[in-house]
Amino acid sequence: MGETVSVGLLGLGTVGSGVVQMITDHQKELQQRIGCPVEVRKILVQDMEKERDVQVDSSLLTKDADDIIFDSDIDVVIEAIGGIEKAQSLILKALNNKKHVVTANKDLMALNGGELLSAARENDCDLFYEASVAGGIPILRSLVEGLSSDRITKMMGIVNGTTNYILTKMSKNKLSFEDVLKKAQELGFAEADPTSDIEGLDAARKMVILSTLGYSMKFGLEDVDVEGITRVSEEDIAYSKRLGYTMKLIGLAKADNGSVEISVQPTLLPNEHPLSSVNDEYNAVYVYGEAVGETMFYGPGAGQLPTATAVVADLVAVIKNMRLGVNGKSVILPQNEKKLKTAEDIDSKYFLRMIVKDEAGAFSVITNLFKEQGISLEKLIQEPLVNQKQAEVVIVTHKTNQKAYEETYNRLRDLDVVVEVKSRYRVEEV
Amino acid sequence: MGETVSVGLLGLGTVGSGVVQMITDHQKELQQRIGCPVEVRKILVQDMEKERDVQVDSSLLTKDADDIIFDSDIDVVIEAIGGIEKAQSLILKALNNKKHVVTANKDLMALNGGELLSAARENDCDLFYEASVAGGIPILRSLVEGLSSDRITKMMGIVNGTTNYILTKMSKNKLSFEDVLKKAQELGFAEADPTSDIEGLDAARKMVILSTLGYSMKFGLEDVDVEGITRVSEEDIAYSKRLGYTMKLIGLAKADNGSVEISVQPTLLPNEHPLSSVNDEYNAVYVYGEAVGETMFYGPGAGQLPTATAVVADLVAVIKNMRLGVNGKSVILPQNEKKLKTAEDIDSKYFLRMIVKDEAGAFSVITNLFKEQGISLEKLIQEPLVNQKQAEVVIVTHKTNQKAYEETYNRLRDLDVVVEVKSRYRVEEV
Repeated sequence: MGETVSVGLLGLGTVGSGVVQMITDHQKELQQRIGCPVEVRKILVQDMEKERDVQVDSSLLTKDADDIIFDSDIDVVIEAIGGIEKAQSLILKALNNKKHVVTANKDLMALNGGELLSAARENDCDLFYEASVAGGIPILRSLVEGLSSDRITKMMGIVNGTTNYILTKMSKNKLSFEDVLKKAQELGFAEADPTSDIEGLDAARKMVILSTLGYSMKFGLEDVDVEGITRVSEEDIAYSKRLGYTMKLIGLAKADNGSVEISVQPTLLPNEHPLSSVNDEYNAVYVYGEAVGETMFYGPGAGQLPTATAVVADLVAVIKNMRLGVNGKSVILPQNEKKLKTAEDIDSKYFLRMIVKDEAGAFSVITNLFKEQGISLEKLIQEPLVNQKQAEVVIVTHKTNQKAYEETYNRLRDLDVVVEVKSRYRVEEV
Repeated sequence: MGETVSVGLLGLGTVGSGVVQMITDHQKELQQRIGCPVEVRKILVQDMEKERDVQVDSSLLTKDADDIIFDSDIDVVIEAIGGIEKAQSLILKALNNKKHVVTANKDLMALNGGELLSAARENDCDLFYEASVAGGIPILRSLVEGLSSDRITKMMGIVNGTTNYILTKMSKNKLSFEDVLKKAQELGFAEADPTSDIEGLDAARKMVILSTLGYSMKFGLEDVDVEGITRVSEEDIAYSKRLGYTMKLIGLAKADNGSVEISVQPTLLPNEHPLSSVNDEYNAVYVYGEAVGETMFYGPGAGQLPTATAVVADLVAVIKNMRLGVNGKSVILPQNEKKLKTAEDIDSKYFLRMIVKDEAGAFSVITNLFKEQGISLEKLIQEPLVNQKQAEVVIVTHKTNQKAYEETYNRLRDLDVVVEVKSRYRVEEV
């Protein structure tokens, strides 16, 4: 059995406590896998006196990060404080002091992953961040190793548990967004301030990380077209069901001829799509590879122990590398120049729901507009609105490019017969 | 850029041709990932003159395996001939000649994986076999690395595409087993001799490999309780649908208190179970970890390019290890003593369908029997059979141990009021 590996832990909140618990409870199995004991040697906390869920010897606690960064006995630093500035400065300091780093910090990795990974490589240190995307699902590893031989052409992620929970409940129980959000907050599935989840920002950060790895280009948040789920209505969901679709908040990263589009938006998927059965707070990442075809990785996207599982799996990888003397060798930096698609390059089907005047010829005015723009229609529903001289029209187009679609949408809104375009969504198939 | 890595390929059938195609088509990406060119230097074939789908220079072909095994320029041998004896002797010879080996051979790995892995370790060689289970799904890597920190308590696999295709079609189109099998053979989804698929043997081999890795015990085929899908009837599927279940051929490997049960059998899953939506020829492995909870890995279980994807991903891993000088270090041998559950340790719910005499008190005779055995019932359907003095009774039990269940089953068949027990299946939930 090798010498004990010592870990310094930054933060003892939900994730940090889970890590302590796993390292304690699974000590025997960990030793079996890595051939040496692992101990948490010091823990950075804000409040030394606070009551905690997890049992830790108070002598391990410190309020001074330098006690960890400059402890020459500490081999690996686990960052679990979250946030940007402080976490970043501590990770850089740790790397520059030749400590390997494991982090679950998606905000930071999405924002400054490139810089941190370069620092890791320069210092021959590992920097792993499996837990930053889709919690307990080993998706980053699968992209980098399992699918290393293939060319990925499309990734679609349900990478935010809160919004998936909300959309699932809206769909199953025919409830409004507001009602479900309130319920989700009561149950702890949504934060008191849910903005970053429901506006799609959290998912966008994860898509930046996935896209950067999957396409080996350095993407940033500014490359992601983001839209949340706040405007999704019960009617939208009811109509999509009638047409055989399931509504999901999808992070999409799609490559064609070397150019990539990245977006997060409420999207209609055919019911048979593997992602359509991913319900409640679960996450899944669907990866399409040129050779392998369709694959999907499913599991818990958050939660104390699932996240800790990913963090400790990264720790195992670091320690295995230490024992082989190969740390820093598996740090992967983007190798291709970033190329983003233009609106002309983006092809998709679209769903549009609108209120039109219920008068002779109204419908043909609309279909003529689509025809003029070269967009053919795949599905159509027209229904009179009771007691009003209006009808509701729902259209699903065949594939068209985004430019033609946006133009059509704008002209549609100017049509006399169109009272209002109530909603529109992207429709994605395989 | 490093020196070219040379590969010797044993076999140029479906998998072998796919490997050649991927190494050729993805050369640029492979070089980017591993930092050196990869070439297929020699290929063992049976017939030098045969027409092939893939373009290969005829000077690469040989009928003599020694041309590959003893070529000192060849670093890695890819075994794609299948079968047991010859493949085994060639792999051992290659390892003993310090060549790393990648194989897709599930039969061999299930039968003699331990011996081959020991030989690899002794020779400081890698032996990878990701393609042997669930084709394009990187499940072995996920077990060993992504979930390395957790304790796995249950694995359930849809690991045979042919039987999943058959059950899906039977269920969706209300067809008989025989009709669908015939159709599947016409379409190439089932072999001319489908025995090993439909009798569950193919799935059993994969479960041996998964269980050995997941529980770090050396299992063999003799440890798997195997039953195929040939007796699954349209009526069974219709009743399971009515009760909210989906019928799947499930490879189950479940651990409780350090003891493991392994089986392959047609199983009823609740419709909401993630595996219930895995349709057609797709495969998926559901893994339950103590900390992570539910995860699932989904993708193509077979096919030329999906399998080649896994083989070439293993090749990439071998080459990365070569460049780091750490080959043979990630070979994992079972570390725990094998412990199998007894019938008393196996807990499950069960589905039973039987024909009973339609006479007063018949039903209570049956329910009394279950009560005596301490088995309570969760769901019940009783339906008179038209024009017969008989009724059909379908029962789903609550959880019970296998011993009590088998005893009940045997006594049930002896009951006067029971005409025939038509079928019985295990019911698995989370």
